[in-house]
Amino acid sequence: MKKLWGGRFSKQPEEWVDEFGASISFDKQLASHDIKGSLAHAKMLFQSGIIEESAYENIKNGLQDLQVQEQEGKLEYSVKYEDIHLNLEKLLTDQIGPDGGKLHTARSRNDQVATDFHLFVKEETLEIIDQINELQNSLLNLAEDHVETIIPGYTHLQRAQPVSFAHHLLAYFWMLERDKERLQDSLKRTDIMPLGAGALAGTTFPIDRNVTMNELGFSKKYLNSLDAVSDRDFAIESCSNASMIMMHLSRFCEELILWSSEEFGFIEISDSFTTGSSMMPQKKNPDMAELIRGKSGRVYGSLLSLLTLMKGLPLAYNKDMQEDKEPVFDAVKTVKGCLSIMTGMMNEIKINEDRMNKAVHQDFSNATELADYLAKNGIPFREAHELVGQMVLHCIQKGCYLLDISLEEYKEWCPIVQEDLYEALSPKTAVEKRNSEGGTGFQAVRQQLEAAKSAVFISSN
Amino acid sequence: MKKLWGGRFSKQPEEWVDEFGASISFDKQLASHDIKGSLAHAKMLFQSGIIEESAYENIKNGLQDLQVQEQEGKLEYSVKYEDIHLNLEKLLTDQIGPDGGKLHTARSRNDQVATDFHLFVKEETLEIIDQINELQNSLLNLAEDHVETIIPGYTHLQRAQPVSFAHHLLAYFWMLERDKERLQDSLKRTDIMPLGAGALAGTTFPIDRNVTMNELGFSKKYLNSLDAVSDRDFAIESCSNASMIMMHLSRFCEELILWSSEEFGFIEISDSFTTGSSMMPQKKNPDMAELIRGKSGRVYGSLLSLLTLMKGLPLAYNKDMQEDKEPVFDAVKTVKGCLSIMTGMMNEIKINEDRMNKAVHQDFSNATELADYLAKNGIPFREAHELVGQMVLHCIQKGCYLLDISLEEYKEWCPIVQEDLYEALSPKTAVEKRNSEGGTGFQAVRQQLEAAKSAVFISSN
Amino acid sequence: MKKLWGGRFSKQPEEWVDEFGASISFDKQLASHDIKGSLAHAKMLFQSGIIEESAYENIKNGLQDLQVQEQEGKLEYSVKYEDIHLNLEKLLTDQIGPDGGKLHTARSRNDQVATDFHLFVKEETLEIIDQINELQNSLLNLAEDHVETIIPGYTHLQRAQPVSFAHHLLAYFWMLERDKERLQDSLKRTDIMPLGAGALAGTTFPIDRNVTMNELGFSKKYLNSLDAVSDRDFAIESCSNASMIMMHLSRFCEELILWSSEEFGFIEISDSFTTGSSMMPQKKNPDMAELIRGKSGRVYGSLLSLLTLMKGLPLAYNKDMQEDKEPVFDAVKTVKGCLSIMTGMMNEIKINEDRMNKAVHQDFSNATELADYLAKNGIPFREAHELVGQMVLHCIQKGCYLLDISLEEYKEWCPIVQEDLYEALSPKTAVEKRNSEGGTGFQAVRQQLEAAKSAVFISSN
Amino acid sequence: MKKLWGGRFSKQPEEWVDEFGASISFDKQLASHDIKGSLAHAKMLFQSGIIEESAYENIKNGLQDLQVQEQEGKLEYSVKYEDIHLNLEKLLTDQIGPDGGKLHTARSRNDQVATDFHLFVKEETLEIIDQINELQNSLLNLAEDHVETIIPGYTHLQRAQPVSFAHHLLAYFWMLERDKERLQDSLKRTDIMPLGAGALAGTTFPIDRNVTMNELGFSKKYLNSLDAVSDRDFAIESCSNASMIMMHLSRFCEELILWSSEEFGFIEISDSFTTGSSMMPQKKNPDMAELIRGKSGRVYGSLLSLLTLMKGLPLAYNKDMQEDKEPVFDAVKTVKGCLSIMTGMMNEIKINEDRMNKAVHQDFSNATELADYLAKNGIPFREAHELVGQMVLHCIQKGCYLLDISLEEYKEWCPIVQEDLYEALSPKTAVEKRNSEGGTGFQAVRQQLEAAKSAVFISSN
Repeated sequence: MKKLWGGRFSKQPEEWVDEFGASISFDKQLASHDIKGSLAHAKMLFQSGIIEESAYENIKNGLQDLQVQEQEGKLEYSVKYEDIHLNLEKLLTDQIGPDGGKLHTARSRNDQVATDFHLFVKEETLEIIDQINELQNSLLNLAEDHVETIIPGYTHLQRAQPVSFAHHLLAYFWMLERDKERLQDSLKRTDIMPLGAGALAGTTFPIDRNVTMNELGFSKKYLNSLDAVSDRDFAIESCSNASMIMMHLSRFCEELILWSSEEFGFIEISDSFTTGSSMMPQKKNPDMAELIRGKSGRVYGSLLSLLTLMKGLPLAYNKDMQEDKEPVFDAVKTVKGCLSIMTGMMNEIKINEDRMNKAVHQDFSNATELADYLAKNGIPFREAHELVGQMVLHCIQKGCYLLDISLEEYKEWCPIVQEDLYEALSPKTAVEKRNSEGGTGFQAVRQQLEAAKSAVFISSN
Repeated sequence: MKKLWGGRFSKQPEEWVDEFGASISFDKQLASHDIKGSLAHAKMLFQSGIIEESAYENIKNGLQDLQVQEQEGKLEYSVKYEDIHLNLEKLLTDQIGPDGGKLHTARSRNDQVATDFHLFVKEETLEIIDQINELQNSLLNLAEDHVETIIPGYTHLQRAQPVSFAHHLLAYFWMLERDKERLQDSLKRTDIMPLGAGALAGTTFPIDRNVTMNELGFSKKYLNSLDAVSDRDFAIESCSNASMIMMHLSRFCEELILWSSEEFGFIEISDSFTTGSSMMPQKKNPDMAELIRGKSGRVYGSLLSLLTLMKGLPLAYNKDMQEDKEPVFDAVKTVKGCLSIMTGMMNEIKINEDRMNKAVHQDFSNATELADYLAKNGIPFREAHELVGQMVLHCIQKGCYLLDISLEEYKEWCPIVQEDLYEALSPKTAVEKRNSEGGTGFQAVRQQLEAAKSAVFISSN
Repeated sequence: MKKLWGGRFSKQPEEWVDEFGASISFDKQLASHDIKGSLAHAKMLFQSGIIEESAYENIKNGLQDLQVQEQEGKLEYSVKYEDIHLNLEKLLTDQIGPDGGKLHTARSRNDQVATDFHLFVKEETLEIIDQINELQNSLLNLAEDHVETIIPGYTHLQRAQPVSFAHHLLAYFWMLERDKERLQDSLKRTDIMPLGAGALAGTTFPIDRNVTMNELGFSKKYLNSLDAVSDRDFAIESCSNASMIMMHLSRFCEELILWSSEEFGFIEISDSFTTGSSMMPQKKNPDMAELIRGKSGRVYGSLLSLLTLMKGLPLAYNKDMQEDKEPVFDAVKTVKGCLSIMTGMMNEIKINEDRMNKAVHQDFSNATELADYLAKNGIPFREAHELVGQMVLHCIQKGCYLLDISLEEYKEWCPIVQEDLYEALSPKTAVEKRNSEGGTGFQAVRQQLEAAKSAVFISSN
Repeated sequence: MKKLWGGRFSKQPEEWVDEFGASISFDKQLASHDIKGSLAHAKMLFQSGIIEESAYENIKNGLQDLQVQEQEGKLEYSVKYEDIHLNLEKLLTDQIGPDGGKLHTARSRNDQVATDFHLFVKEETLEIIDQINELQNSLLNLAEDHVETIIPGYTHLQRAQPVSFAHHLLAYFWMLERDKERLQDSLKRTDIMPLGAGALAGTTFPIDRNVTMNELGFSKKYLNSLDAVSDRDFAIESCSNASMIMMHLSRFCEELILWSSEEFGFIEISDSFTTGSSMMPQKKNPDMAELIRGKSGRVYGSLLSLLTLMKGLPLAYNKDMQEDKEPVFDAVKTVKGCLSIMTGMMNEIKINEDRMNKAVHQDFSNATELADYLAKNGIPFREAHELVGQMVLHCIQKGCYLLDISLEEYKEWCPIVQEDLYEALSPKTAVEKRNSEGGTGFQAVRQQLEAAKSAVFISSN
């Protein structure tokens, strides 16, 4: 078989080398974007007078045919034609004859592949934003039902202070909100058209980049042809944003796994998202949550892979850059899968309010209340803190909790204590009165919920 | 020595454990931010009626004293007090007595450290933006002098097409412009105040977070206290942006190193930024460019370090997060150092126009011109490409370049060739007529320069 | 000030550039190794007749003086002399005059720094091996006391089957054993001398590398001078091994943190290794375990940093490589600190056998026993598994455990069940009869303990 | 469809969740290893009296049938059965009936998958060792032809001292030798059998792990069942070794790319391993070398992905670990592909001795010779170095090289210079007399070649 660029060569590469160098096995994912890009380019070539109308019609019809076949999964690619661009060009030329060769006028594979890739990343970024909205809505629904459900709040995985379960869920809502914001910001650097940059230097043909930009729905054009073909920032940024999303999901999943354990028992994940064991029939494993947690590594790996790839590459295009696609494809697919699963899991999750309630009554997480009580009654904070520490130690040694200490005993220890202490120490009081802005108090959480709803409403409209 | 939080404990940690757990060795960098945060918090406590005026005045005066001492480098910290927050509290209390203890009312180290860290990252982000502006200005100055200086443009490190040297420099300008845009975007998620979140759940004290927000110059507040103390997105985003900057600089430095080699010889880096060898006296090593290239690894490492750190951490604060600062401190310091050095290097760089000019006349980088010439004269592009490939091979075998082939020989090979081909094949022509938008043509580059100047003018105002 | 290599230069670098390029701030850690290397080199120069005896004596005395001063912390370095090598050379020359200049005969900074670095990594590797031995001994002591202490064994953080606590501890023993083995293996590639490679090409002086090799205690010499000065495999391997150690410790620490939680309550970490909260007086945070878990990110970052650094560097030495030391210094320091803390923590850990015992009696982790019971009595395994699954579901719905089901009920469900089932279902039985090699049965664990003791005995002798 | 572990569940997972959780799409690569493992396990079950002979014969025949079908590519897997293990079990049971269910006695998917994975990594490690041997042989052949071919030796990409081209090639030989050594060492931790560990705790069946160990050709067994199912060190080590190989290849490829450039022109890569440009017909791009350089990022990513995955995972098996295979599969495939391509490239490489020779005569890389000349004639080394620096500067200003300076001029500058200096300054002399052990002198290189041949002979025998 004859290479399209083979004129200068006296020897044919062996097949296995071809395979090593070819990208068709993965860049076929860009087929629809490539055809779309070619349609726009052809139109521009015609409108700018670079190709005649008959050639344009010929090319357009051919490409539209390919488009249909592509959607029907009928196109067949060959490793001989290296990548999706040459494969499609070959298919087009086979179909429409020599006019097919004119399509490549004033274009190079360098700006062509960059254009396809930009179209792909833009499209997927928008889809991921939608998926995050769905997960956020799922969290909002759950949170609305659980404003007054109380769970232990942890720091260092030690019970710290009881909190509203809705408040806990909303913490993840805001992480996701930032993820969306980052994706939105990244579009500024993704939604830019490289087409027209040629191989690296622009072209002598009188092209009109506004035509292709409008046809393809890009908001801006690259202003420097070398930059246009060698920039992969948008791909790295996409993996960086995906890594952050996965980091957030890994934290959430860690909690779902903890909460599903016999020891915590706060939730039950639906059977749809758990599996059993081939050897231990009682097991109900939070597999999906574990998988998502584990998949954070995969996406971090993609990010690093791209950063390493681009390190120290001179301008402009280098073949190394062919390695830019698989990490992005994989990161996008992973993130989308994980978001779907998370949404599904949250929609079907069962909350064990009994276990949560039991938990908040059997610990020292109201110790801060005691310290605050003292502080509000005039004991300097540090001194109050010190006193409470001693009282907790006393309880531990005695085998009881703070609510079990009698008023007399309290007064002996610190004379300012009054009867109202007991009310102050109940978990519900502890939560409900933390109404500082952004706090876990029920009122504060309800306000937060409204803010969250507005945020998600705006971003999905 | 007695730990401030030691009430509950019956045994004192040994010193080496203290040291392992302490962060004062590095978080002392946050001293000024911590004092600033405390001043704002104290003012708010007073204005909200939580502490009385005398205590506030006392605290304020004490903190201002510390501020002065800090600027003069007179503060002494001890590993016994673990971190900058407890060290400063100790220093304050030593100075003003028990009132010092009241400063910590309605605040926890968790929201305190997060506030300091936000202040730090915000400040440094703005400084880095300024530094990028400087480097961009330096590139603009150089580019203005070299619009018509021609160098080989490369793909695959093979000479591809000659380009304007200004055009090449401007490719880096636009990379840096994206870097700035990313930093600016990240401020949305950095310029948010965690203060008031308490340990994790908010507080029962009637705090007014608008007061502290305004005092500290933050634009927004966290709306969820758990999120406020456990969010490190802004730190990761900062390292991610730093990694991208370093990736760009590593590419530029790779080119500076190549261009400084005997083989390329396109530039000479000023003595100020090169060093010699202890064994080989003739060496003039592009050390600074190499170091910057190498330092990309360091910053990538910081990014990865943070991503790993946060993977799978349950809410809210975990001690692991103490490891969040050093990577950011190091990344910020590295990026700032590298940007300074780059600007210095570019300001003093010597361009060897002779070597550049010689280079563009001794290669086949005008082959595209030949193909375009044929295409414009009616040969289908793919056919033209094939023909030119054969001609190049012919020249290589003959030991000559395309301009050395006689018109007769050309006509034999392809009858449509005319005398005007020779003009078309000169490097200068090749460059100057690529005036497609964003192309390397002199006119296009001059337009690009104007766009670049506007961009940098806007962002530095 | 005059640079030692400044003859060829017409301009002096500014100070801040000096600082950016200098490595003295961190490579001063190599001072003792550098002096040791110089002593060996001087001796060889003399023995090979390259320098005369008087010069050698002079140099030797000067270096020994520096050695003493270095140990006493009296040496003062300056950023003007860039790195530890030039600083020491300057100090030597100041002290002994022109003979100092002869020390650098037949040596370059390239082979000198590589030699110092090899000495350092070798020394630290041996120390880390010792520290691992100590931690292993600590685990062995604890395991010996807890062969018959039973805890739930988990997969997916779901209780799976009860296991001997000693068995669980020994799992970490074997991870550490592999870590040691890897460190030992890495010595093959660390314990090699680069000295004599010169800048990159060897030397024309009649040096005898066997003399320096023996003096410095190296086992082998590099056989290729280019490789000698450009190889950083040993540094990367060191960080790779450190990453694996940290990964293991992060897993162990995750378990310590889980076990310290209110919910698990299996252990109590000594006060020496926990801290309190500035706001919540009851907290006893497993800070050290969290820090170690978090520090895994730091060491992974160092590994990645080195891999990125070395990617795509041409032969031989490049200045980028100056960035090789800090990651290794930091990884070594981190690993050593973490191992010490782990050993301390394990030595003082308190095991709550009551909580462990309670845990193994209140779950379905004996379900496998039931399946095995059926299988041993002739039910095909898959069928048995299926049956047990149904029985577990039945219990959950009924709110009881497997031991609570009556014999009649069992017989109805599966006629082969006999009275001996109850014995088979007790946690202790479940554990003690798993005596397959490497299993958790008490006898098997005792055999394993013996094997572990032999292993650690061998490696510490 | 009914899940094999579905007894306990009341609801069926939806298909897309199945797909997300299933591993059959990639772990089908382990089919042959899984069948091999099952054959050994069945034999052991029979020999230990756990299953009867008829069942064993049945199972054995069924598995051997599957083995044949697998080799012929006839097995069809379904996502419904999640992974390769359950798929094969289903296929077996379909074929031989209920006896198939007995195969899983005394085995869990946890020890089963670990066994398959160990077999895979061991096999691939041995193959990679073979491939490295081939590449080394290719380098040796080339080196033998080029002991006296001289090229510039570089540090900082500045010409430093001329070296033998064979010497340069051999530097890569030794890197590869270390790679092989590391792979060999890793086998100690790969060639260990987990089978018999059950789900995590061993088994109550009287299994004999020596039978399976011998059947499967493992050298050792895991001594702790928890460790056996949760250890992924061998996978990480495999990716770590792969990363080091890729780092070495990326360095080599960087040089091949540099040497192929117009500017260096030292080599020509065979047409089989280069490609052209769709737009620029003269291009001959070193695509394969670039791709290999770029693929370093991919393998680093796999390593990081695994390290992240395992961070902080509690014992024993967690579903996260299902993510362990793809990174290893990809790293192994990448390394093997790259090694093949490298060997092919080296076998067909064309060396441009003319360009190399020209290069070594037109630079200052003999400056060290001048310094050594002075030093050998009594000038202290540092002074000699300084003098030579001045002379180089003088030449640069004059536009000549060191050999162009007259004896009179030399004597004026330094009286000790004699006629023999000119001989000393010739590149060939410079190289040939550097016969220190491991140096670039022809004699030293020939000795090195012999050592290299012995090394590769040993490792391939």
